[in-house]
Amino acid sequence: MIEREISNSLRAETMTAALPFINKYSGKVIVVKYGGNAMSSEELKQSVMEDIVLLSRVGIRIVLVHGGGPDISEMMDRMGKKPVFSDGLRVTDQETVEIVQMVLAGKVNKDLVRLLQKNGGNAIGLCGLDGKMITAKQRSEKLGFVGDVTEVNTKPILDVLDAGYIPVISTIGVDEDSNVYNINGDTAAAEIAASLKAERMILMTDIAGVLHEKDDPSSLIAKLTVSEAKQLQEEGIISGGMIPKIRCCVNAVEKGVKAVVILDGKVPHATVMELLTEEGAGTLITKGE
Amino acid sequence: MIEREISNSLRAETMTAALPFINKYSGKVIVVKYGGNAMSSEELKQSVMEDIVLLSRVGIRIVLVHGGGPDISEMMDRMGKKPVFSDGLRVTDQETVEIVQMVLAGKVNKDLVRLLQKNGGNAIGLCGLDGKMITAKQRSEKLGFVGDVTEVNTKPILDVLDAGYIPVISTIGVDEDSNVYNINGDTAAAEIAASLKAERMILMTDIAGVLHEKDDPSSLIAKLTVSEAKQLQEEGIISGGMIPKIRCCVNAVEKGVKAVVILDGKVPHATVMELLTEEGAGTLITKGE
Amino acid sequence: MIEREISNSLRAETMTAALPFINKYSGKVIVVKYGGNAMSSEELKQSVMEDIVLLSRVGIRIVLVHGGGPDISEMMDRMGKKPVFSDGLRVTDQETVEIVQMVLAGKVNKDLVRLLQKNGGNAIGLCGLDGKMITAKQRSEKLGFVGDVTEVNTKPILDVLDAGYIPVISTIGVDEDSNVYNINGDTAAAEIAASLKAERMILMTDIAGVLHEKDDPSSLIAKLTVSEAKQLQEEGIISGGMIPKIRCCVNAVEKGVKAVVILDGKVPHATVMELLTEEGAGTLITKGE
Amino acid sequence: MIEREISNSLRAETMTAALPFINKYSGKVIVVKYGGNAMSSEELKQSVMEDIVLLSRVGIRIVLVHGGGPDISEMMDRMGKKPVFSDGLRVTDQETVEIVQMVLAGKVNKDLVRLLQKNGGNAIGLCGLDGKMITAKQRSEKLGFVGDVTEVNTKPILDVLDAGYIPVISTIGVDEDSNVYNINGDTAAAEIAASLKAERMILMTDIAGVLHEKDDPSSLIAKLTVSEAKQLQEEGIISGGMIPKIRCCVNAVEKGVKAVVILDGKVPHATVMELLTEEGAGTLITKGE
Amino acid sequence: MIEREISNSLRAETMTAALPFINKYSGKVIVVKYGGNAMSSEELKQSVMEDIVLLSRVGIRIVLVHGGGPDISEMMDRMGKKPVFSDGLRVTDQETVEIVQMVLAGKVNKDLVRLLQKNGGNAIGLCGLDGKMITAKQRSEKLGFVGDVTEVNTKPILDVLDAGYIPVISTIGVDEDSNVYNINGDTAAAEIAASLKAERMILMTDIAGVLHEKDDPSSLIAKLTVSEAKQLQEEGIISGGMIPKIRCCVNAVEKGVKAVVILDGKVPHATVMELLTEEGAGTLITKGE
Amino acid sequence: MIEREISNSLRAETMTAALPFINKYSGKVIVVKYGGNAMSSEELKQSVMEDIVLLSRVGIRIVLVHGGGPDISEMMDRMGKKPVFSDGLRVTDQETVEIVQMVLAGKVNKDLVRLLQKNGGNAIGLCGLDGKMITAKQRSEKLGFVGDVTEVNTKPILDVLDAGYIPVISTIGVDEDSNVYNINGDTAAAEIAASLKAERMILMTDIAGVLHEKDDPSSLIAKLTVSEAKQLQEEGIISGGMIPKIRCCVNAVEKGVKAVVILDGKVPHATVMELLTEEGAGTLITKGE
Repeated sequence: MIEREISNSLRAETMTAALPFINKYSGKVIVVKYGGNAMSSEELKQSVMEDIVLLSRVGIRIVLVHGGGPDISEMMDRMGKKPVFSDGLRVTDQETVEIVQMVLAGKVNKDLVRLLQKNGGNAIGLCGLDGKMITAKQRSEKLGFVGDVTEVNTKPILDVLDAGYIPVISTIGVDEDSNVYNINGDTAAAEIAASLKAERMILMTDIAGVLHEKDDPSSLIAKLTVSEAKQLQEEGIISGGMIPKIRCCVNAVEKGVKAVVILDGKVPHATVMELLTEEGAGTLITKGE
Repeated sequence: MIEREISNSLRAETMTAALPFINKYSGKVIVVKYGGNAMSSEELKQSVMEDIVLLSRVGIRIVLVHGGGPDISEMMDRMGKKPVFSDGLRVTDQETVEIVQMVLAGKVNKDLVRLLQKNGGNAIGLCGLDGKMITAKQRSEKLGFVGDVTEVNTKPILDVLDAGYIPVISTIGVDEDSNVYNINGDTAAAEIAASLKAERMILMTDIAGVLHEKDDPSSLIAKLTVSEAKQLQEEGIISGGMIPKIRCCVNAVEKGVKAVVILDGKVPHATVMELLTEEGAGTLITKGE
Repeated sequence: MIEREISNSLRAETMTAALPFINKYSGKVIVVKYGGNAMSSEELKQSVMEDIVLLSRVGIRIVLVHGGGPDISEMMDRMGKKPVFSDGLRVTDQETVEIVQMVLAGKVNKDLVRLLQKNGGNAIGLCGLDGKMITAKQRSEKLGFVGDVTEVNTKPILDVLDAGYIPVISTIGVDEDSNVYNINGDTAAAEIAASLKAERMILMTDIAGVLHEKDDPSSLIAKLTVSEAKQLQEEGIISGGMIPKIRCCVNAVEKGVKAVVILDGKVPHATVMELLTEEGAGTLITKGE
Repeated sequence: MIEREISNSLRAETMTAALPFINKYSGKVIVVKYGGNAMSSEELKQSVMEDIVLLSRVGIRIVLVHGGGPDISEMMDRMGKKPVFSDGLRVTDQETVEIVQMVLAGKVNKDLVRLLQKNGGNAIGLCGLDGKMITAKQRSEKLGFVGDVTEVNTKPILDVLDAGYIPVISTIGVDEDSNVYNINGDTAAAEIAASLKAERMILMTDIAGVLHEKDDPSSLIAKLTVSEAKQLQEEGIISGGMIPKIRCCVNAVEKGVKAVVILDGKVPHATVMELLTEEGAGTLITKGE
Repeated sequence: MIEREISNSLRAETMTAALPFINKYSGKVIVVKYGGNAMSSEELKQSVMEDIVLLSRVGIRIVLVHGGGPDISEMMDRMGKKPVFSDGLRVTDQETVEIVQMVLAGKVNKDLVRLLQKNGGNAIGLCGLDGKMITAKQRSEKLGFVGDVTEVNTKPILDVLDAGYIPVISTIGVDEDSNVYNINGDTAAAEIAASLKAERMILMTDIAGVLHEKDDPSSLIAKLTVSEAKQLQEEGIISGGMIPKIRCCVNAVEKGVKAVVILDGKVPHATVMELLTEEGAGTLITKGE
Repeated sequence: MIEREISNSLRAETMTAALPFINKYSGKVIVVKYGGNAMSSEELKQSVMEDIVLLSRVGIRIVLVHGGGPDISEMMDRMGKKPVFSDGLRVTDQETVEIVQMVLAGKVNKDLVRLLQKNGGNAIGLCGLDGKMITAKQRSEKLGFVGDVTEVNTKPILDVLDAGYIPVISTIGVDEDSNVYNINGDTAAAEIAASLKAERMILMTDIAGVLHEKDDPSSLIAKLTVSEAKQLQEEGIISGGMIPKIRCCVNAVEKGVKAVVILDGKVPHATVMELLTEEGAGTLITKGE
């Protein structure tokens, strides 16, 4: 996979060049939200798994939060289940939320655990039900079992981290009456990162970050403060599908995450590039002063 | 649920009468294999959950291993997947084992976790992939992804127990090439119990235990040694579906589990009855001298 | 002791019905003050010991504080020691306080330890001298070695709890000059409970609790706030020997105990009834809003 | 107490001269059996307490086992209880063993605890009932509740040591039926020391040690092996009351105590002299090669 | 070394007489600054080492900070290196600071470690570079690598203490650019003591303490508050070389050290005399009210 | 230092390619003996430091043992100290061993500690005197203070590792009479590695490893068993200065080190190349079957 012409000695140099970054993040909590197209290619998935294991091995307390929309849709399709929409939002009935739980916590989650183990990592797959980690409430009766996070119990996450495992988390939650809810992966990751007072949240998407010129990756904005992000949104430079992504990042930063990075999950090893090289990758959003 | 006429004082007496049994098992590992009809009734499920949480609360280190055959069959049916058999055994192709993983680890497992939490327990759902807990190998090429346990890594189970959770375990395993296998729940539970040098394994089935007269529950044999069990099998008193159950129990005892109890999961609170009352329930199998 | 007609299955149901209460108190500190007539009957003593061991087994951090007036009087009588009173209070000379120490810490305390061990508990008997647990000062010169608690050192209690034992405590104290004092058991228990920020203090007396109509147990008041208790005292409903009991409870609550229960120690298993059944027993006193 | 003419600087020199001995015993378990006349003088008691606290402060894991015969006799006398003998041995009926427990565990034990605390030590008083430390059996029916040690549970002793306290132990024991027995202090100390694999047991008596010429302290034998001790007994040089003392020492050494010292408890600071000065005190008994 | 006429028993009495002082300091951090003439005599060095090991053995958390001016000067002389002065202060060029590091951390420090081990202590030699313990900055460009402490990282000191060693510390520091600085031993000790919130700092000098009449040791002032010390300085009673010593002590006290003692290191066992005898030694400086 | 044309993405790929090697060594003890020409160039020193910190960051328990011959010689020269030889071996008088201690433990050791800290590592510098780590005895009277290791006390090394530091070790030792000895760095490293049952020992020299054709680096032998190494020595292929190096490696392997690598310290990042790349570097010596 790596070009043959890189000498052994250059490899060693490359690795030691990462030391300042390793020193910086060692012992810190970093939440990675893994989703989008980066999940559909086996090759990209392998690259993300390697990144996660590597980051875990250099002493970063990695928490992997994942989505899985396409897998859910595919399963519903196979089961002959028709999606119902209300004002453009998917209505989640009891049967749907059961499928969501089954696909996320049983298929996507445990597959990631298996791949992390295969790459030398040590992982345990959790969902919001384990140790009552994610408490949620219904967003609106009309949408059924779509939930918003009301509380994150960090104990099971920290217990699993402290015992030496990478926690892999499916974003479903439970309310006081033991009803299960499907929770948007990005916002759940932000709530988890905020509760853990994470040093970084990495949000993998399908574009390179915030771009000055739409469709021109070379116009990538490397750094934004929360207020600059809001400004860009007002100016219409942040628009469309990027709006909820940025809102989620801003929310995380305002709730206590030190910085959030939005990057393109389709770039192999984007996470390691962001964290362990000087150039980085994607757009970094911080609170600013 | 409890008859009104039981006085408050009688309740207290009943509880303290359980003390000798609580003292006996406190701090010990007990593996409960939960399966069969006890899983299909919501009322029975609730009763089993209460038992598990109670046993956990009185200081027993409970490990809950579960099956889920009917849920798997139902899901396959809904997905239009036809079962294929070879010599009476189900052939498990790649797609089937994916469904098995998804249903066991995502649906059945996490539902149990949720119910334990609802009843005041503290649980984390694991499968054999988490922390590479269950290593397996293919039984025969013809059967596809049907596996036999080659090794149990008890570390994730003990880590979860030590952090104060009830581990709930789905019995799928993984081989050195990262292939996933469906593993028979009873035998997996026996291997887990043996690896943990458990004090007891409770095997829930659909009959009361070993009966002298088939279909006559009053002929229940309360205690058997391994050699007596083998004798009864030769004599044909243990026959039919009971044979593999007993073989599994004998195997567990021979590998180091102190005693195994086979009991009727359809009787409410059978597990608490067995462990915390004098009469007990079901048939106890020990090594004998 | 339990009526024969209670089926095995009913026992199991009864136990699991206690789960919500077990869940509520597990891990919490509960101080039980054991005294009065409940100490003079061997049968009642056995019932109290079973309660204490059971509560300890379900994860409650039980601290057992005991009295022993009758034993002291009997011993003084046997030694031909005449009681002297001043304004109705017993004058405690040097010889008397030595007898008190000897009887409480050597006879009553170690007997309770032995009975707890016999019932499967794990106990260590302490008095206020061990680890300088209770510092006291003289109440009045006239009364001799009658002391008031000035400080509770919770370290020896917590050390013993953390090592897995039930601390059993005799209420004698010591001043800076190493003089020993006899301390009223109820008030010492209240000070200990307050220092431990206990979840509950159970005060065993010889009547059912606070009664609306004196001598009519059916007029039991199940719940009182501190201000209601004061009100009842003004109204004369709380009177006589109940006054110092209630004052002690109110003091404990005001110093930080979450709630105090005053109950009849002569009712078998009253403590388990109070803590692990829905109806409870006795009168609960809380701070109110 | 110390003569005025010793200069401050000489004191410092004296202390640092003890360093080689402190280094030798630091971190080791030493069991001190305190009894005999050394208990009856308040001045000697103070000197022993100072020794114990000092040894504890220099890092020795001191376990203090005490007797109390005279206190028991005095109490029985005060209670008008006549001693009964059978073949020269005291018959211990139920009432007597209760008095023994009360006096040892309530009076002598807690007084020692109080004095240790007064001298800056940190102590917890235990008896053989606490944590079921000493299991005993009846020696002979005729003698009633006179017991022999069948097992020492070192856990409560080690728990108390590890939490930073000096365990002070009364030598009563309990059998499987919860009967209490009076146990000879010297032999109980030897069993405790053996179970703890102690570095030293110090046995305080009323004579200087083993003497070549009876009544001539200058003929003290400083060191004996087990076989030499047996030889001296055959030769009649060890005789009378010294025989059971030496038997007890020999027994301790044979069961695993590294060495036992028999010394005169009436000499002030004899224990510190033995352990922290070059000359030592008393007779040291070792296994020999 | 100790006069022959001191009896064994007097030794034991002397040691137990130290108990109140041992009790007072046990478990507390005491920083000893060892320097001056006390370092040049082998006999005095041996006496200081015995003191340090003894204090460590009685449970004091001793931190030994040392100087070494004469050794540095001797080494520079041997290397033909001429001292350069600017306004009376030694100019420290790169070569000089290398010699300082080498002599302090390699010769003086490790010699002390070796002697402590020889006397039964357990020691680890550190300098301000280990674990980046002492961060410093240049005092003035003219003086070269003479530094002032900007931060003390107590972690390596506490790690070494907690693992059971006496930390022996050479006072060199490092700045953000990894330059090494020579730091005055007294002020470094004061900064270390302040960072550790030490109970005592002992500053060994060549005179007995603060004297009312210069050259008259009998006019020693035993106790001073910070304000009294300042007053004495204004009055000229504290003068000459004593001024920076007292300034250093006052600084330590104002930054959080509970008390500082300035004493004559040439008196054998002065540290043990100060800490473990009633008379003490030297002048004690406290904050006053 | 790294060529500009390596893309950011290639860097990330290079790092993740090291994962299998990181997984293999994580948590294992690796002893690196650093010496020879690799110590004289500042650039090479920087490269070694980066390697050590990187290996420590990826979870390897690195122990750095260093030499320093040239620094010692230079210092002796500066001090006008003439080397004396006996049969070709340097005679080490008292003054010489003091210089050795001073230069190794004060200059070389603490400089390495400083550089590791500068590169983000966390290090503590020790020598064989600290915690009495290396016990030695005189090799021959004629040679003076040249010592052979008789025992390695691993406790200080493990304490420092467990507290999260890289131990940096100077190879001087001490005998029972507290004499200091200079010990050959390679053999001391081998003894340390053997005592720690290290996974690997890396021995940095000035040639590439064992060569089939002297002076032809392309004839490097990548792997040798102990018996092959002995064979090559008999055949004269291993000769000259390589003989003691190989003897040291063989000794380490025979005493329990899993494998030893001899490599060229002059190649930048040779240690990382050896441990974290597929090709490796130098010659690996294992026990063979």
